[in-house]
Amino acid sequence: MTRPRVAVSILGATGTVGQQFVRLLAGHPWFEIVQVAASAQSVGKPYADAVRWRDAGPIPENVAGLIVRRCDPTLDAPIAFSALDASLAGPLEQGLAAAGVQVVSNASSHRMDPLVPLLIPEVNPDHLGLLAAQRKARGWTGGIVANPNCSTAAIVLGLAPLHRAFGVERLVVATMQAVSGAGYPGVASLDIVGNVVPWIGGEEEKIEQETRKLFGEYAAGVVEEALITVSAHTNRVPVVDGHLAVLSVGFRTRPGVQDAVAAIEAFRPSAAVAALPSTPARPVVFDSRVDRPQPRLDLLAGDGMTVTVGRVRPCPLLDLRLVVLGHNTVRGAAGAAIQNAELLVAAGEVTG
Amino acid sequence: MTRPRVAVSILGATGTVGQQFVRLLAGHPWFEIVQVAASAQSVGKPYADAVRWRDAGPIPENVAGLIVRRCDPTLDAPIAFSALDASLAGPLEQGLAAAGVQVVSNASSHRMDPLVPLLIPEVNPDHLGLLAAQRKARGWTGGIVANPNCSTAAIVLGLAPLHRAFGVERLVVATMQAVSGAGYPGVASLDIVGNVVPWIGGEEEKIEQETRKLFGEYAAGVVEEALITVSAHTNRVPVVDGHLAVLSVGFRTRPGVQDAVAAIEAFRPSAAVAALPSTPARPVVFDSRVDRPQPRLDLLAGDGMTVTVGRVRPCPLLDLRLVVLGHNTVRGAAGAAIQNAELLVAAGEVTG
Amino acid sequence: MTRPRVAVSILGATGTVGQQFVRLLAGHPWFEIVQVAASAQSVGKPYADAVRWRDAGPIPENVAGLIVRRCDPTLDAPIAFSALDASLAGPLEQGLAAAGVQVVSNASSHRMDPLVPLLIPEVNPDHLGLLAAQRKARGWTGGIVANPNCSTAAIVLGLAPLHRAFGVERLVVATMQAVSGAGYPGVASLDIVGNVVPWIGGEEEKIEQETRKLFGEYAAGVVEEALITVSAHTNRVPVVDGHLAVLSVGFRTRPGVQDAVAAIEAFRPSAAVAALPSTPARPVVFDSRVDRPQPRLDLLAGDGMTVTVGRVRPCPLLDLRLVVLGHNTVRGAAGAAIQNAELLVAAGEVTG
Amino acid sequence: MTRPRVAVSILGATGTVGQQFVRLLAGHPWFEIVQVAASAQSVGKPYADAVRWRDAGPIPENVAGLIVRRCDPTLDAPIAFSALDASLAGPLEQGLAAAGVQVVSNASSHRMDPLVPLLIPEVNPDHLGLLAAQRKARGWTGGIVANPNCSTAAIVLGLAPLHRAFGVERLVVATMQAVSGAGYPGVASLDIVGNVVPWIGGEEEKIEQETRKLFGEYAAGVVEEALITVSAHTNRVPVVDGHLAVLSVGFRTRPGVQDAVAAIEAFRPSAAVAALPSTPARPVVFDSRVDRPQPRLDLLAGDGMTVTVGRVRPCPLLDLRLVVLGHNTVRGAAGAAIQNAELLVAAGEVTG
Repeated sequence: MTRPRVAVSILGATGTVGQQFVRLLAGHPWFEIVQVAASAQSVGKPYADAVRWRDAGPIPENVAGLIVRRCDPTLDAPIAFSALDASLAGPLEQGLAAAGVQVVSNASSHRMDPLVPLLIPEVNPDHLGLLAAQRKARGWTGGIVANPNCSTAAIVLGLAPLHRAFGVERLVVATMQAVSGAGYPGVASLDIVGNVVPWIGGEEEKIEQETRKLFGEYAAGVVEEALITVSAHTNRVPVVDGHLAVLSVGFRTRPGVQDAVAAIEAFRPSAAVAALPSTPARPVVFDSRVDRPQPRLDLLAGDGMTVTVGRVRPCPLLDLRLVVLGHNTVRGAAGAAIQNAELLVAAGEVTG
Repeated sequence: MTRPRVAVSILGATGTVGQQFVRLLAGHPWFEIVQVAASAQSVGKPYADAVRWRDAGPIPENVAGLIVRRCDPTLDAPIAFSALDASLAGPLEQGLAAAGVQVVSNASSHRMDPLVPLLIPEVNPDHLGLLAAQRKARGWTGGIVANPNCSTAAIVLGLAPLHRAFGVERLVVATMQAVSGAGYPGVASLDIVGNVVPWIGGEEEKIEQETRKLFGEYAAGVVEEALITVSAHTNRVPVVDGHLAVLSVGFRTRPGVQDAVAAIEAFRPSAAVAALPSTPARPVVFDSRVDRPQPRLDLLAGDGMTVTVGRVRPCPLLDLRLVVLGHNTVRGAAGAAIQNAELLVAAGEVTG
Repeated sequence: MTRPRVAVSILGATGTVGQQFVRLLAGHPWFEIVQVAASAQSVGKPYADAVRWRDAGPIPENVAGLIVRRCDPTLDAPIAFSALDASLAGPLEQGLAAAGVQVVSNASSHRMDPLVPLLIPEVNPDHLGLLAAQRKARGWTGGIVANPNCSTAAIVLGLAPLHRAFGVERLVVATMQAVSGAGYPGVASLDIVGNVVPWIGGEEEKIEQETRKLFGEYAAGVVEEALITVSAHTNRVPVVDGHLAVLSVGFRTRPGVQDAVAAIEAFRPSAAVAALPSTPARPVVFDSRVDRPQPRLDLLAGDGMTVTVGRVRPCPLLDLRLVVLGHNTVRGAAGAAIQNAELLVAAGEVTG
Repeated sequence: MTRPRVAVSILGATGTVGQQFVRLLAGHPWFEIVQVAASAQSVGKPYADAVRWRDAGPIPENVAGLIVRRCDPTLDAPIAFSALDASLAGPLEQGLAAAGVQVVSNASSHRMDPLVPLLIPEVNPDHLGLLAAQRKARGWTGGIVANPNCSTAAIVLGLAPLHRAFGVERLVVATMQAVSGAGYPGVASLDIVGNVVPWIGGEEEKIEQETRKLFGEYAAGVVEEALITVSAHTNRVPVVDGHLAVLSVGFRTRPGVQDAVAAIEAFRPSAAVAALPSTPARPVVFDSRVDRPQPRLDLLAGDGMTVTVGRVRPCPLLDLRLVVLGHNTVRGAAGAAIQNAELLVAAGEVTG
């Protein structure tokens, strides 16, 4: 199937996640960046001049020369990827949706809005059904979909095979999160070199809430949140990329270790989701080595879109313990949003 | 009170923990190092030549010239501090105890022996009562006492005020442990720079077992382990010193956050334990700042003998969540053993 | 000798260096902080509320309650320690000097002013003679003295014994500088975790210029700069505290390695400088171990005021190679300024 | 051109560099691994069982099942890649050369042997002429070629465009080297986390000697070393991969900065060398950004075979200063050896 590429814009294009969008969309078979937007001090400059480009490779040619625009509803590409700060994203994204744009957001602003689909295509693609209700309730011709927080993305996708098979009911999770999760400049080196900071503002609440919504049941325009009790401990560690999480999990039906591993290894996306360009062949893999996964070694599984699970073992208190690793700026941010946009296109929700 | 200092020997004196003993015992009011022992390649050399001294300061003068001896029962100082590897400590420590030496061990070999007191003086000084039973059962004129594993030391001491007041019953704990906990050379830099390793061999089992013994009830020559279900996740992080742990805790009597903080702040050692030279004024302190404790900033509280607790907050699954930090080579190793030896002296168990 | 303590103010008291002043002046025998000043958002608050205190210990009691004032000439303590950014320090420090205050500055603004003494008390205490010329030329009743840049301080003090004995003429120096040298938030963790940045803005020029002034000859109200050709390469490394420098040095009189070591080991401050409270017993020490000095291990020599030199060996191109380590926020910033103020007091330049 | 792939063996196949050979040779168009050899404890096991595989990806299938053999002359593949420790490589490599094998060595044992070509194909491919003299003098039917030390490789290749154009005569170089350069387990994390070690055993001598040989003139079976005075300062930093070096350079003909940059940008390998599979399109690139190159960001230029040069600027003492970065385990080890083997094949020196 060849189709003309869908024009897309990037909101917040000069930041860390914005740059990740530019990098991941270079050569994308379905999407073409035609507009970039950022804050006032960048407006009017060519993207190459406005950005402090951090990637090792060069800025993709077709983007380098784009003149940075304001983040406002004059952005008229059919899809807008939002890498905006949560403090700004709310009204801007709504304005674009009202103007007919399909906003695919990485911001937290609308994730818990009952009418906004919070999506991981391998986990809950049916939540896309909320879009019709959203359009109707809000009177928008466009819409908003969101991907989860970076650590939630890895945790929920890593648990998805087990939830589907055995029903997650209780979860204690402790994260060890990379500094790239805080953007740039983000975490001061004085705070984190040779250190751990046992606190990330707002992160524990996000993991607890978003997990319930992502595993929720969709029916008739409503997502009913899953009844899962989640207790999160979030920590920042001196790692560049890759969020690691250690989990104690209780299930409706207690699985043995071998059952759990088998469920993970059997997990495959639906055919429709497997056909999306960003969906990896194996969204979740199990690594049987005793000391894996590790952020630096296992980060790039599935080009950053695969979550790695390891150390599945009994839990003395709940049922099982395990370790989950995900790439926070790919599966946990820009890559997740791009995959969501692909799902929208495949579902016919984008009329470019 | 002035008394003559008790002569002590150090087993494994050239290793990381052995050096920490030498450093911490410099100028100690009660103890004087008179013998150092190490492995075959060091025997016969002056300590200063045998050791790869890592501390910034110089080797204490009275130790630098001691000739390194074999680790065997000819070491006849009344107290032997053991910094031996667990693979070697078992029979060596027993031989010394049989020969009349009071062995104060940091090794794991005898920690779970029902006749060996596993001690944190602020937590369970009455467990010292096991020594009489030990002597009788084993026919020793000396004895063996042990301090807990480095991460257990911080976790149990941090929980002690809450256990005393509310009764810990369930615990999920995830640790982020410093590289010094693995000795030298220990963790390869290729494994840990910019990385996390979610596995430390044997560590989870130690935390789970030792916690129950430390919180156990002593009566009539027997320690009955506490009925606490512990689930541990142990991780290595690129931090030099200081083990951090995040905990979800369930209690017999559920405390509010303010009750818990009040219990921590009211916690004081008994007068007898407070009088030991190594006991800090406040063995456990509460830090109310949202992002504390942190290893690099809070490591040296109480010269490394104080455990810092922070982020006491409700747990959606159990009762409370909190963060605990302890100095792994002081409170979790050499400092702990020295304090144990002080307890022995104060209790009249050492007849130098 | 007991004398009443001199009242001092701290400009920029809430920043990294400002906090270091507060910490190092706690219990200082000669000085007492009576005024703290900072930027507009802090003015009017108690210091304890305005500062994000980073030190492990508590804020000294006598400072915690001081109300933060504006940085302006109403600060009337006889000595003002300036921890201001260079972008702000220039006119503020001049205003205070005009108003009769002796400004002891860590800022770079006036370091190369021919009338401002740039001081390391062990190296060039006679440069203090510039103050009379300064007062006369500027019409000030107070004055300004400066300490060198953090890396220059270590390099020049480390070289001082050799310069005195053999005359440094040519110097190639490469630094590896800690992140604390950039203040807080300073270097972003994304830039430096697992990385090196081979550039620090303006630093190479500072080392090259300040070295010549510090080693300059004072006579009759003028410092004639030393004729030393300096080539600096400055690099940021993921170290918390401690600037390391590797040097190739050419001398007027080529010394052998043993001559050089002997000169370092014989180096002592003058009696007047040795009597200052902040002067360490040995301002420069030589470490003969093959792999020393190292930032993490040797940082605290002389409570951070001693520079450690190691690896003195022949240089195939110039005469000698060596390694120098200094504590950048003590000997390279607040500690240096405090020692300078002590020198002023001892020289009768402060009339409190 | 299609030709049958040449069979190769790997000596020291289970170590860090050995694994890098296995990784880089997967899918190589000219070479096929048919034998792997390692130390006694690995002999007889399938490679997959003997190796502690550290790469994120899987072990290449054709190698995983090879039974590990002894390192001895029964290895009869026409080419042997040697990843042996220098302590073992000497006689083993000679034995293989005597037995007719072309040994392509990463070990230091024979690098300075006047009859062994020390090669960087883009720099001194004509040194291959030594092989005929080597065969004759030693009576071998095979031979030995070597690639330089990991830091020398980057320094010399980075300087090659300037040496060719202006004649390097004097060099002061300070390196900041990654921990992977020391193999596994290599540098202890306790030595390097948050630290710098200003010493790497033997490294400074290697840089000084190998630079002169690599830039030497070949004629009539002899390499006459270049008359370059080199002074090296080598340092270990907490970086995973990538050796950074800062250089002050004096030339026969002093170039301006723009001349130097132009020479770097114009540098291309000869057509014969450009045709080798491992030769990157641009072996040396210039990065004009003020704070580049940086190890973590620029490591993978040219898949690790390109050296990046930055910060070309005047030197107050010599002529120019600059920064060079190279990938130490690719351009500085396995990748270099593979490219050398390609050069041998292209030159008709391998008769498989």
